[in-house]
Amino acid sequence: MEVEVLKALANQRRLQILEWLRDPVAHFPPQVDGDLETDGVCGVLIAQKLKVSQPTAGEHLKVLAAAGLIEGKRIKQWVFYRRDEDRIREVKQAFSQDW
Amino acid sequence: MEVEVLKALANQRRLQILEWLRDPVAHFPPQVDGDLETDGVCGVLIAQKLKVSQPTAGEHLKVLAAAGLIEGKRIKQWVFYRRDEDRIREVKQAFSQDW
Repeated sequence: MEVEVLKALANQRRLQILEWLRDPVAHFPPQVDGDLETDGVCGVLIAQKLKVSQPTAGEHLKVLAAAGLIEGKRIKQWVFYRRDEDRIREVKQAFSQDW
Repeated sequence: MEVEVLKALANQRRLQILEWLRDPVAHFPPQVDGDLETDGVCGVLIAQKLKVSQPTAGEHLKVLAAAGLIEGKRIKQWVFYRRDEDRIREVKQAFSQDW
């Protein structure tokens, strides 16, 4: 089991982000740029919904991305985030066995 | 998913302890007091195998116990630790679903 991925998950806000991104349409309004389902959710919207500053949200998103749990995609001046479901499946599989 | 249990797991030494306790006989010498399998492993042996001081090992064991992942049992002046397999099963189950 990778400690880094556990550290990334061991935070209420990051768990919350992952949960929202599981079903973006249910949790976020439609976006002008970037389709919620195919492109992901704009970091600005995530910060707003978390009720934290953009740098704070950005830090959490960076930790999740570094652990491979989400991926960011730049469109114009924004970054859109979505879950990496293959990686998440792998992590769940490892967790069920490795300890 | 409980953040506290993820925090407890997000540490290389604590993961190592849990792994050793999965098969105590394979990882620890027989004990004079306390049967490795039924009573658990003496905290002193865990500290020695981790190559850390007893207070340091004690802190890790306390975190794991607070998360319900292991339980301690006092025999004479020592505390013996073993995994709570029911709780660990529950945690794995939650992890596979909750995020």
